[in-house]
Amino acid sequence: MKKIKCVISYDGTNFKGYQIQPKKRTVQGELEQALKKIHKGTPIRIQASGRTDTGVHAKGQTIHFETDYSLSSYNWIKAMNTLLPDDIYVKEVVEASNTFHARYDVIEKEYHYFIWNEKETDVFKRNYAYQFPYHLDMKAMQKACAFFEGTHDFTTFSSAKATIMGSKVRNLFEASCRQNGKEIEFIFRGSGFLYNMVRIMVGTILDVGQGRLDPDDIPVLLEKKDRREVGLTVPPQGLYLWQVKYEDGESSES
Amino acid sequence: MKKIKCVISYDGTNFKGYQIQPKKRTVQGELEQALKKIHKGTPIRIQASGRTDTGVHAKGQTIHFETDYSLSSYNWIKAMNTLLPDDIYVKEVVEASNTFHARYDVIEKEYHYFIWNEKETDVFKRNYAYQFPYHLDMKAMQKACAFFEGTHDFTTFSSAKATIMGSKVRNLFEASCRQNGKEIEFIFRGSGFLYNMVRIMVGTILDVGQGRLDPDDIPVLLEKKDRREVGLTVPPQGLYLWQVKYEDGESSES
Repeated sequence: MKKIKCVISYDGTNFKGYQIQPKKRTVQGELEQALKKIHKGTPIRIQASGRTDTGVHAKGQTIHFETDYSLSSYNWIKAMNTLLPDDIYVKEVVEASNTFHARYDVIEKEYHYFIWNEKETDVFKRNYAYQFPYHLDMKAMQKACAFFEGTHDFTTFSSAKATIMGSKVRNLFEASCRQNGKEIEFIFRGSGFLYNMVRIMVGTILDVGQGRLDPDDIPVLLEKKDRREVGLTVPPQGLYLWQVKYEDGESSES
Repeated sequence: MKKIKCVISYDGTNFKGYQIQPKKRTVQGELEQALKKIHKGTPIRIQASGRTDTGVHAKGQTIHFETDYSLSSYNWIKAMNTLLPDDIYVKEVVEASNTFHARYDVIEKEYHYFIWNEKETDVFKRNYAYQFPYHLDMKAMQKACAFFEGTHDFTTFSSAKATIMGSKVRNLFEASCRQNGKEIEFIFRGSGFLYNMVRIMVGTILDVGQGRLDPDDIPVLLEKKDRREVGLTVPPQGLYLWQVKYEDGESSES
């Protein structure tokens, strides 16, 4: 058995999220269906670095699967992309060590979130950014971002619905935002992320950008460890799983 | 009766083109359905500057319709956008003179065509640009573009299927191309365009970019007045109806 690691991108618009579900169009479902065809009907289970929700995109999601087929990277890429729908694309295939695991071996994940900061609706952005029509104070938002960097308990900034076991302490290596014309891009890099964490952090940073919160409120809110203390979860279409990094230094950068 | 002129944008991906057709999802169909609702069931026929094919986008299509309703521009925009699906957006509404016609009064139309000049597929571009993986000589393509400017018989560069009456002479005010990173943008402005004309010109200019034709071949090809002399019609998803200009100097610029 060989272990195959793939870096894939997908446009999340027309998927009911990453994770396989009966009778729903999902990224995992499409990938497993393509691999089943390549393996002449043998079901192949894939493992991903993590799930993404309905409407969330990936520039560099990483998955792995086991196979007794021997194909070159080029031929894996070609075979998979031929069978996959055009909103999923396999960018990279490598043979990994047989201990490799796409989820458990992650050392860093990077998410980007895009705001289209403009009153006028742009039909070409509707599935790819969150349209936010109000003025935003970039300096205040940058200050707020900095407070998220480092090791914190992120309970306040994770979905109350999430019932994960264990610690909600995570380490963020980077939380930043920058403006390119009417577009605002948030970048988050960390050891791991809780459910909805990026989308709740962005919602709170937008409150800072509008002057409804002060950047200095962020450490206080982290301390409260209560989801009810902060505002809205921003919508999924602005969110991109950008890349996933593993021990071997290889990344899934796009 | 008032005559209402609207500038609209749409993402052509999920439409079977602009023109209304039974049981197909079309831009005109959606617009007329929204206007019928606003007019409490009275059918309203709209006129556009011209049709666009399946998959072709618009940043600034112009339409008009007649109504006995008196709404402010703001309220027309609001009412229509509330009822329209999220891949059509009404940007501008003005009351036009009662002789105005969105098709017959056009003095200039502008189309842009986008090439994604990269080997690697980008799932986020698949519906919005034509992926072309081979090297292109920008200088040669710019030279080729210049030969299209001016007044010519464009028979060679229009669909052989088109059975329009009258002259195939058109006047192009601008034909140009420019590179922004991996993206190549073509701009065409003219008094009018024949069916598939932009997509056939771009296909031929790409032949020049690859060295299969010389820029100096363009005037010779124009002279032949034969569609069979030139190559492929490039696909629709790279094409955008950018703006339409009218006598009054008003444009539908995005």
